[in-house]
Amino acid sequence: MLEVYHAEPGANSLKVLLALKEKQIEFQSCYISLNKFEQHEDWFKAINPMGQVPVIVHDGKVINESTVINEYLDAVFEGPKLRPDDEYGRAMMRIWTKWVDEYFCPALSYLAWNQIIAAMVKDLTEAEFEAKLARIPLKEQRDKWRITAREGYPQDRLDEWRGQVASSITRLETALAKGGPWLLGEQFTLADIAVFSMAHPVPMGYPDLMNDRDTPHLMAWHRRMLERPGVQAALAMPNRYRDEMLASKRADLNPGGASR
Amino acid sequence: MLEVYHAEPGANSLKVLLALKEKQIEFQSCYISLNKFEQHEDWFKAINPMGQVPVIVHDGKVINESTVINEYLDAVFEGPKLRPDDEYGRAMMRIWTKWVDEYFCPALSYLAWNQIIAAMVKDLTEAEFEAKLARIPLKEQRDKWRITAREGYPQDRLDEWRGQVASSITRLETALAKGGPWLLGEQFTLADIAVFSMAHPVPMGYPDLMNDRDTPHLMAWHRRMLERPGVQAALAMPNRYRDEMLASKRADLNPGGASR
Repeated sequence: MLEVYHAEPGANSLKVLLALKEKQIEFQSCYISLNKFEQHEDWFKAINPMGQVPVIVHDGKVINESTVINEYLDAVFEGPKLRPDDEYGRAMMRIWTKWVDEYFCPALSYLAWNQIIAAMVKDLTEAEFEAKLARIPLKEQRDKWRITAREGYPQDRLDEWRGQVASSITRLETALAKGGPWLLGEQFTLADIAVFSMAHPVPMGYPDLMNDRDTPHLMAWHRRMLERPGVQAALAMPNRYRDEMLASKRADLNPGGASR
Repeated sequence: MLEVYHAEPGANSLKVLLALKEKQIEFQSCYISLNKFEQHEDWFKAINPMGQVPVIVHDGKVINESTVINEYLDAVFEGPKLRPDDEYGRAMMRIWTKWVDEYFCPALSYLAWNQIIAAMVKDLTEAEFEAKLARIPLKEQRDKWRITAREGYPQDRLDEWRGQVASSITRLETALAKGGPWLLGEQFTLADIAVFSMAHPVPMGYPDLMNDRDTPHLMAWHRRMLERPGVQAALAMPNRYRDEMLASKRADLNPGGASR
């Protein structure tokens, strides 16, 4: 009935899991391991030719793009409304979700890819790496993998993205300082979900940018988010990437451990 | 009642003018001269702090972002429906409008800015140019103006954007070859409007990419668009930038002409 192809509860996969859990929609979770490049396998590209998660299949109809999926879920399923009823409110919500997709998310993603892709492919031979690349349908994605697996992005672009993260955090703090408790005021909406899906790891990854001293309203909002049962349920979804990384770190620290 | 701040009928301003004219909505046209940097003047930034057009003011409520504006106009005003009634259709429409905003439009815009901004500021002294820059609210916009007014973007980024335009045209041709007459099939929607607002000048600017031989379905769609009275009405809106450029070219060719 409703299949959801997603990775760990982070970024765009988290965005859709949050909407599903907030609305308490029943769905079949289909976990895709990005660490094993499952999103580039032929069976998955038959579902989403872009080779990206998340994707939903509802009554046989395939929908990709997390922001589009979330509006669809809210329109089609029962449960608490995650969009304002009035059209001006919806417009204000969409300005946030669009801003996340076009500005906040890309900056964070490029910086994250620059750190993690090299680690993900470090055990591949050149031939294995090229074989993985050849399966990626989008040219921009292939370019990203090639650059980040090798020397990484040039410093000036990394600086530009870091500047975008900083100005994003300032924008969020300014907005939340004016009102709250949620981004649009009294109603919790897809705007909060979209922002949280990206902002959740920022206090950990960029503690100099998002912290109680400099961004108190944003941090208070973050804590309010973490108190929501729907948010807790989404974050409790299996996180195999984190588990595998922890297992690999443990193995590094204790090389004989696996056989003991 | 409805004020629309817009520039020439091109790109994002055209996108909103197309929706207005297709729905035959009455509005007060407030022309903003980008050539005179009016979008960075204080009175305009009091309306849109981003310093960008288009913006609408409806019953005192300000909405920016052309894609968000168009969904609002379609939801709130009478006239032909520019969004499918079913939610799956709307999702498919939003995947197109989102793709235009995140992929097709930025590539075309960066390439265009790289050509035109230097020409727009060529008669300014250094101090005048810096004064203009200081009024631009968004850092990314200031950076863009500074780079394009001087040496322009590096060749590898220009190549990247040109590649994005080429793959965009291929994607559109492939989609229209499968069906039509419109991007979502029988219904003319905001997807056609969003794509046209960017694709309209492409056969002229990139004749090697979009032409009758290589992209016949896209060219046929472009002609169908041009036959629509709403599209004709939007394109007939004053184009002062073009008029000023033509006048300036005429003056260059015939220096004494102005006083004769």
